[in-house]
Amino acid sequence: MLRMRTRLLFSGFEAGQGWFQACLTGLAALFLLMLSAPATADTISELRSPNGQIKIEAGELGGRPFYRVSRADKPVIANSRLGFMLADQPKLDGGFAVMATERASGNETWEQPWGEARYIKNHYQEMTLQFREGEGRKRTYSVRFRAFDDGIGFRYEFPDQAGLQTVQIAEEKTEFVIAEPGTAWWIPAGEWNRYEYLYQRTPVKEVPQVHTPMTIRTASGLHLSFHEAALVDYSAMWLRRVEGQRFVSQLSPSANGPKVVREAPFNTPWRTIQISPDAAGLVTSHLILNLNEPNALGDVSWVKPHKYVGIWWEMHINKSTWGSGPTHGATTVNAKRYIDFAARHGFRGVLIEGWNVGWDGNWFGGESGFDFTKAYPDFDLEAVAAYARLKNVRLIGHHETAANVANYEPQLDAALKLYARLGVDSIKTGYVADAGGARVQGADGVVRHEWHDGQAMSRHHLHVVKEAARQKIAINAHEPIKDTGLRRTYPNWVAREGARGQEYNAWGSPTNPPEHEVNLVFTRLLSGPMDYTPGIFQLKPTLGQNQVLTTLSKQLALYVALYSPIQMAADLPEHYEANMAPFQFIKDVPTDWEETRVLNGEVGDYVTIARKDRNSQDWFLGAITDENPRNLTVGLSFLTPAKTYRAHIYRDGPKAHFKDNPYPIVIETRNVTSRSSLPLALAPGGGQAVRFEAME
Amino acid sequence: MLRMRTRLLFSGFEAGQGWFQACLTGLAALFLLMLSAPATADTISELRSPNGQIKIEAGELGGRPFYRVSRADKPVIANSRLGFMLADQPKLDGGFAVMATERASGNETWEQPWGEARYIKNHYQEMTLQFREGEGRKRTYSVRFRAFDDGIGFRYEFPDQAGLQTVQIAEEKTEFVIAEPGTAWWIPAGEWNRYEYLYQRTPVKEVPQVHTPMTIRTASGLHLSFHEAALVDYSAMWLRRVEGQRFVSQLSPSANGPKVVREAPFNTPWRTIQISPDAAGLVTSHLILNLNEPNALGDVSWVKPHKYVGIWWEMHINKSTWGSGPTHGATTVNAKRYIDFAARHGFRGVLIEGWNVGWDGNWFGGESGFDFTKAYPDFDLEAVAAYARLKNVRLIGHHETAANVANYEPQLDAALKLYARLGVDSIKTGYVADAGGARVQGADGVVRHEWHDGQAMSRHHLHVVKEAARQKIAINAHEPIKDTGLRRTYPNWVAREGARGQEYNAWGSPTNPPEHEVNLVFTRLLSGPMDYTPGIFQLKPTLGQNQVLTTLSKQLALYVALYSPIQMAADLPEHYEANMAPFQFIKDVPTDWEETRVLNGEVGDYVTIARKDRNSQDWFLGAITDENPRNLTVGLSFLTPAKTYRAHIYRDGPKAHFKDNPYPIVIETRNVTSRSSLPLALAPGGGQAVRFEAME
Repeated sequence: MLRMRTRLLFSGFEAGQGWFQACLTGLAALFLLMLSAPATADTISELRSPNGQIKIEAGELGGRPFYRVSRADKPVIANSRLGFMLADQPKLDGGFAVMATERASGNETWEQPWGEARYIKNHYQEMTLQFREGEGRKRTYSVRFRAFDDGIGFRYEFPDQAGLQTVQIAEEKTEFVIAEPGTAWWIPAGEWNRYEYLYQRTPVKEVPQVHTPMTIRTASGLHLSFHEAALVDYSAMWLRRVEGQRFVSQLSPSANGPKVVREAPFNTPWRTIQISPDAAGLVTSHLILNLNEPNALGDVSWVKPHKYVGIWWEMHINKSTWGSGPTHGATTVNAKRYIDFAARHGFRGVLIEGWNVGWDGNWFGGESGFDFTKAYPDFDLEAVAAYARLKNVRLIGHHETAANVANYEPQLDAALKLYARLGVDSIKTGYVADAGGARVQGADGVVRHEWHDGQAMSRHHLHVVKEAARQKIAINAHEPIKDTGLRRTYPNWVAREGARGQEYNAWGSPTNPPEHEVNLVFTRLLSGPMDYTPGIFQLKPTLGQNQVLTTLSKQLALYVALYSPIQMAADLPEHYEANMAPFQFIKDVPTDWEETRVLNGEVGDYVTIARKDRNSQDWFLGAITDENPRNLTVGLSFLTPAKTYRAHIYRDGPKAHFKDNPYPIVIETRNVTSRSSLPLALAPGGGQAVRFEAME
Repeated sequence: MLRMRTRLLFSGFEAGQGWFQACLTGLAALFLLMLSAPATADTISELRSPNGQIKIEAGELGGRPFYRVSRADKPVIANSRLGFMLADQPKLDGGFAVMATERASGNETWEQPWGEARYIKNHYQEMTLQFREGEGRKRTYSVRFRAFDDGIGFRYEFPDQAGLQTVQIAEEKTEFVIAEPGTAWWIPAGEWNRYEYLYQRTPVKEVPQVHTPMTIRTASGLHLSFHEAALVDYSAMWLRRVEGQRFVSQLSPSANGPKVVREAPFNTPWRTIQISPDAAGLVTSHLILNLNEPNALGDVSWVKPHKYVGIWWEMHINKSTWGSGPTHGATTVNAKRYIDFAARHGFRGVLIEGWNVGWDGNWFGGESGFDFTKAYPDFDLEAVAAYARLKNVRLIGHHETAANVANYEPQLDAALKLYARLGVDSIKTGYVADAGGARVQGADGVVRHEWHDGQAMSRHHLHVVKEAARQKIAINAHEPIKDTGLRRTYPNWVAREGARGQEYNAWGSPTNPPEHEVNLVFTRLLSGPMDYTPGIFQLKPTLGQNQVLTTLSKQLALYVALYSPIQMAADLPEHYEANMAPFQFIKDVPTDWEETRVLNGEVGDYVTIARKDRNSQDWFLGAITDENPRNLTVGLSFLTPAKTYRAHIYRDGPKAHFKDNPYPIVIETRNVTSRSSLPLALAPGGGQAVRFEAME
């Protein structure tokens, strides 16, 4: 008895205060002691990554499942608890023993149908601990851990069992106790039904409740990204700091009681921690993808990476309207103008927003009545589609749902089939939910407001993607649920928004600051491709005071720095045709890559990324900086040795500055080889874009 | 149109980022602009406290209800938004205009039937703003503001209206943007189903999600306490820091979907901010009580402040057990021993825990089966009660529910009537909910896990108090919902636990540190009386390593420092009878006060409180310190002039120290008058207790 008590106290000390300590030191500990509950022996198992650097230790301390992580024998995650609060049963918390430990490993290289890299190495060691209660209901669950050289992942697995069939999760209680002080980059969670915030940079101990990915640089220089993989039929995990550097999972709410309801057997999403000695390593980590299931769709050659233009920015800058009337943007005439422009300059896609009935009135007020197959009278969908086919251009469909899922889902099948019939093979969806949540019909027929990232919406988004796949249509979701790597399993889920995009530069207050896109590379982009819509050339786009706070050259560099298999040339055709020289880079840059190298970079400060075109021998480079100018030099050793490349360089001109002199751009060419080095002179808020054209 | 936009942007800037800014700057702002919603004019009304120092400004900015607070023209609360997320309707957020502004004032002095002060001054200015939507459902609500000289309060009032009958609140969105940097004292919320944490002291910008009261000392020395008053049929308000110093209300969850469901008309609890230039002012503020409704019970002379002993500490230190068996604490024999002791030393009450069936097995595991009327065989309830009556002692009833409300409520009536029949006029209730929540049966008959401070439990606690009042029984709830001043309306709700009590010194890890009780004075105690159970004389109570980290003298001082109308002498009778000299103070100290003065103090460091006995001319003083020794001098001007008092002083002896020398105590007397001053020499972790006995 005394031994048991000593151990309980010890683990309490180790884990700090709060949920852990209070439970250990509360009446529970006392009564455990007094009622002679059988003491389980501490069980700790160890798992190391293939190169041995990253170590996971997990098991139970005093009957409480836990894990911890170290790298090079230095703690990264201190003792952190695992468990669940349930809505209808005692919580899954203490009183557990490790019944079995299974080990496995994986080492494969798989090919992406499209992506930032063609081949992905998936090399890990695996350990699965089966926990079971010693008394009472004797409930059981397992935790599967995988250790990679670039981080770790683990998930809970609930087997079929008599004592726990319908699992009603009131809260997941997965802790992340960050061992070392550090700086964090984050956006708040729990506030608004979107991810559209500016990233904040604070000490870890000032982080409140945040979305993932959350990026941390520790005092010793380690870079961490906390996120999740394969968010399927479950609520998104937020991270809430409890005290000090201790975080706990906080699932996105449900309008109907328990945050998650699932029938066993089922698995939770993977909880992931990417670990890298430098910022660059986070960007090139494929851990999230590796923890997703392989392609479930078979042949996906119909998913085509591409660039597109569209009727979109002109509404944002108030030149035309989504709604009907004299300034309606989506007219037949205007659509043909964009199709002509796309055909002339080699863009595969033309997005047309505002063509369908429903945009008039307070559509974002939550009770929208969009009709997804009925066009406004001034838009002849059949004729426009025919014209596009004639011009060898694909229309990009648009489904703004206003998050009124109860209105959208009954129309989904017809809406997809309409587009499929017209040759539309990708759709941008939208979920503007300003009225206070997505309107989702429950199994009981009642329509409730759901969070954009709760279980109901995780189901909805995947439902749309699967239904679209049946019609060979790709999905680009705006105001989406966050990306957790599901593009591996469903390669038609090509991109998302899910952060503050370029559109805020039209009407935001403030507009995106110069550090914003650099922040995105090391935060939002770690989760997957983002449809940021770069390429604004008219940097004071409205008559108002709003301004795009980048140089012109940086707008070009974004096409390489911010990965997406679909990239918009977001500005108006006339702005491109008046600036054909810089526009050439947008025309040249591909959207599908053989491989990606991050040449330098610090979170939120600057980054230089080089990517090799998947369909040629060309390489491309994008370098971007925050409000500070940078003079960097990069070696070109990534180029194929002994090969000569013509470097088409687009760089900030003399005295360029995001604030008051954004337009100067120098476009020059020089020949380089893998032994060359390239100076990068980035203006404040500037950037540099390079095409390395492989010569014969 | 342009004017409207300018205003929107302006308010966005003022309020900072996040929910506010994102909404203002998101598509909503854009579309408001584009769709020609009628611009409402900003409306700002001003309310000043009676002395003019505290100013509330409130109204709407760009259609969004807001408020701000200043003191002496210095901002205390910057622009902070008001509103709600609803489960079934668009949120109550933007698009509101002020339809009416009503003003009122109050200036009265009311008498407490018992309390820390007999007469309470309630002096305020009031302003009620009626907000109404300009379009759509044209929903309406009011916000009633009151400005006192010691702070502010406001509540939402929902009138009967066609468009909003059943109000399903998904979240309340009341912001508190703290204008100045500061230091905060807090415990985390959202972790565990209790308030039993050690208070943490951090910069405001490191506060996570916390319970109220939260105490803040700003850089300029202002002291603030954030809390609520009159929590009735609603979920407790937590405070979640969103970013910087911006907090937002976070209602305790409900297991059944919306956090609160109410039929209009109804009012929310008052949201309160106490404001004082010094720490002492927080302790003597009666703002919370003033915002509660007057006594609803009529004659409550049957509620008797008192001291008590009981069968309790011996279980905590493992000398006996709650459960049955050879070491069962609640036996007839043992109960009579405590009754004898109480009668001998003038204690009115004897608490007996563990007498009723249900303590054996895993009772705290959430599915307890307590029987509230059936005694264990070794406890003869009728005989013990008769013996108590014979000795002129009152038994104190005990209802440990293990938070199994579904088990308790059906038995409540019989359980109360049993006690009433036996002359028991106060009951200690308990809600140990270690299994993950209170088990509450919903209207649909389903038993769900509810948070200890959600709407369901706010209803339950008040139900028990009201039912107890019908039997003329007082309630002292442990593991309760927090106190919000309802003792004014229901004076039989005499005290609660609701913080880490003395019991943690028996088995906690760590035990309560020396600063703990000083923290309590300026945090938990601001909400209302706490049954801390002071008076431990054997400071190493078990064979283990646990130690009460105070001096003996401090244990005496706690009776004055920690206000409660019921106070336990918590230690074993034999420990008191072996130390009769210090025990005399416990015998002498009253529990009902005519008035209270805070002579000095700093949050978490030290405090000296003087209180005048309500039933004599005597004054009492308690001074306590944290781990640091203090040499303080207090003037005794609070004593009646020209009167002589014999000061019975209980002070730390030479070299007394909480750690290794806690017992030295000097007991001495001297005569003093209101012109005297008294030196207070407090040892590390020490305290001083004084009875000023009024002489003829």
